[in-house]
Amino acid sequence: MAERKAGTMSLDPEELAKRHPAELAELLHELPDAEAVRLLRELYKVRAAADSLEEMDPNEAAELLEELPDEEATAIISRMEPDDAVDVLEEFPRDQVEEILEHLRSLDREKAQVLQRLLAYPPDTAGGLMSPEYVALPADITAQEAIERLRKVAEEAETVYYVYVVDREGRLLGVLSLRDLVFARPDTPIREIMRPEVVTLSPDMSAEEVVQAFDKYGYLAFPVVDEEKRILGIVTVDDILDVLTDEATEDMYKMANVPRQERVDTPWYESLRMRLPWLYINLATAFLAASVVGAFEGVIAKISALAIFMPVVAGQGGNAGMQTVTIVTRGVALGEVPPGKGARILAKEVLLGLLNGLAVGVVVGAVAYGWKHNPYLGLVAFLAMVGNMVIAGLVGASIPLGLRALGLDPALASSVILTTFTDTLGFFLLLGLGYVFRSVL
Amino acid sequence: MAERKAGTMSLDPEELAKRHPAELAELLHELPDAEAVRLLRELYKVRAAADSLEEMDPNEAAELLEELPDEEATAIISRMEPDDAVDVLEEFPRDQVEEILEHLRSLDREKAQVLQRLLAYPPDTAGGLMSPEYVALPADITAQEAIERLRKVAEEAETVYYVYVVDREGRLLGVLSLRDLVFARPDTPIREIMRPEVVTLSPDMSAEEVVQAFDKYGYLAFPVVDEEKRILGIVTVDDILDVLTDEATEDMYKMANVPRQERVDTPWYESLRMRLPWLYINLATAFLAASVVGAFEGVIAKISALAIFMPVVAGQGGNAGMQTVTIVTRGVALGEVPPGKGARILAKEVLLGLLNGLAVGVVVGAVAYGWKHNPYLGLVAFLAMVGNMVIAGLVGASIPLGLRALGLDPALASSVILTTFTDTLGFFLLLGLGYVFRSVL
Repeated sequence: MAERKAGTMSLDPEELAKRHPAELAELLHELPDAEAVRLLRELYKVRAAADSLEEMDPNEAAELLEELPDEEATAIISRMEPDDAVDVLEEFPRDQVEEILEHLRSLDREKAQVLQRLLAYPPDTAGGLMSPEYVALPADITAQEAIERLRKVAEEAETVYYVYVVDREGRLLGVLSLRDLVFARPDTPIREIMRPEVVTLSPDMSAEEVVQAFDKYGYLAFPVVDEEKRILGIVTVDDILDVLTDEATEDMYKMANVPRQERVDTPWYESLRMRLPWLYINLATAFLAASVVGAFEGVIAKISALAIFMPVVAGQGGNAGMQTVTIVTRGVALGEVPPGKGARILAKEVLLGLLNGLAVGVVVGAVAYGWKHNPYLGLVAFLAMVGNMVIAGLVGASIPLGLRALGLDPALASSVILTTFTDTLGFFLLLGLGYVFRSVL
Repeated sequence: MAERKAGTMSLDPEELAKRHPAELAELLHELPDAEAVRLLRELYKVRAAADSLEEMDPNEAAELLEELPDEEATAIISRMEPDDAVDVLEEFPRDQVEEILEHLRSLDREKAQVLQRLLAYPPDTAGGLMSPEYVALPADITAQEAIERLRKVAEEAETVYYVYVVDREGRLLGVLSLRDLVFARPDTPIREIMRPEVVTLSPDMSAEEVVQAFDKYGYLAFPVVDEEKRILGIVTVDDILDVLTDEATEDMYKMANVPRQERVDTPWYESLRMRLPWLYINLATAFLAASVVGAFEGVIAKISALAIFMPVVAGQGGNAGMQTVTIVTRGVALGEVPPGKGARILAKEVLLGLLNGLAVGVVVGAVAYGWKHNPYLGLVAFLAMVGNMVIAGLVGASIPLGLRALGLDPALASSVILTTFTDTLGFFLLLGLGYVFRSVL
């Protein structure tokens, strides 16, 4: 399909330049690699390459750029918005970044310095997310003068979210929206129309905290300031959309023990390298559960009916526990669980485990009884089921709450930890009760 | 904790009016219900109630408003942004909505009509997300006149994202940013500075499609238009932040079979009612796996060692399969899997299943051999492990791809479907091979 599209696609420069960068980015994403590189070089000629790459996944954009001659790649990077350029550079091998920066220094010394400064911040912090393209104006000019100055910088600062008002040392005094400026009397000093209370971010704030600030205040951008309140850059709402998507992916991945870098089109050998360690960890916990079964091998040899209820008791515990883990983990991630509330949530989940356990256990017990016409087998299956569901509620709620209390990520490997408990203890309950009742089963 | 804070909290109206609505919303969220209602009534007196409720979860805001006298609740709702007011009204019981709208009609007839119209759209569509607070101007006025007109409406449209240019029939002709307007020569007709290519939404577009539009184009707002291109409202980027968070929650919930309405503080009886049906579905699938074990009861009675490897083979298959399900589901959700690419992804996951299966199977086989000093037990465990890992890859990738091909949600109940296969077929492989080799085990 992609091949055909490429064949019939017009590479007419004028046609291309008319299309929205987001659509060109989609095209680059869908084309086979060689075709995509060819298209990118055409876009480069009509100066549409940088805009298109800004709209792509930084990882993919880096892969395409690596295929270009160094000078073309450098020229494109120099034309990208600095925060997007940095995201792409972070995907390059370390030494290649140095090379590109070296090239860039001869091309645009100032830009190279800006990128180098931004690269110093870890990507998942406010510093790593920020863009240096903001507008700051001195406090003592008038609204009219401010608009004049804005007109001059308009070319560079593509979207003017807010205008920041600073003192002579560059320290943040207040903020103005473009609207405040337009609707003020022209001769008013901007000091009088600015809003002096500005919510600021510090460069080392985590991406999650930044997202919470956007969520809480609903602004379109926040300034990032140093300790002396000098503006380092701004984080804008469109950067946050990507962070939110990435965070959701990350939480899901962590719960299922999927390596965070993996995507659906990661090459198989990379996937293998990343997934296998997790599977070995799982294997260790599976042997733990198996060793419980092994300890009761004599009981199973005599009462093989117990083996049949092993997957039911363990599986139901695992499923109920995952419901609990998911709800509590998500609640913690969304900030719905203040520290004092943990005990109440734990109590609720244990109660639910008991009640769900009774409801499910009655069915399991009845099936066991009806099948072998042995009331004791029914009793053993019922008790093991109820017990394992209580364990599922207790462990399922404790994992995210406990991980958070330890300062760790609440979603970390939670499914492995949970099923280790629900398998091991579930088998222990079922087979242990079988051992107790062995004379009547 | 919350009690103490409430005790020492100043309810001084001036103090309250100075705080940011987002902070007041947080306070309302943290206080016990009675205290929160008391605070809300104080906020109402200083006209800060509507702004604060806009920042809250609509569900919680509705709960607080239900505790107020009808006229106070109505007054507060009338002062909220229409899209936020509608979100809150959707949380009220149907008949109470009618009552509030009735009240509102006598208070502010126009507002009541706006809310009624918005309530007609399902909440998870572009129509349900949109706000009627946009600015539209005729095409033949000048930039200077446009700014004059904007100055007049500035009070109502709190954030002017874009200015829409319409013809005499209200049909959309183009779009202007405030920046375009400010930086244009004052006597230019806005028809000449507007951008005629506007990306629009239709009111019945799903929230997911709306998110994709924001993600793709990076705009701050999109107009929602009817078939004749008349503007119905706009969806702004801050509405999308909430949708993104909700969607991520929904996907995680679906994979773990958690009911979508449940939150960490849902009352226990509601949680019970919502979770139990899922557990009964799980139970049915667990019995399916158990019936496979039951069919081989004779083999287990003779070779009880097989029971020990049941949890290992089934558990590893389930874990590896969840890795696959998670990655493919997320890939589909993020639009990284174009329709033609399904077969390649399936092939990759089956290959990974085989390779991971070999790597894990060697360890499982070695343990089985070392434990009973029986090479055939080792072989059976090894083969069952490899086979179940291949099944895990095949089924894990097929579920999200298959659900999508059927027009269903790729995340729907995927963990139940997966473990049904990995348990049932895992047991069948292990016990079936045990049966084949029964004379030498």
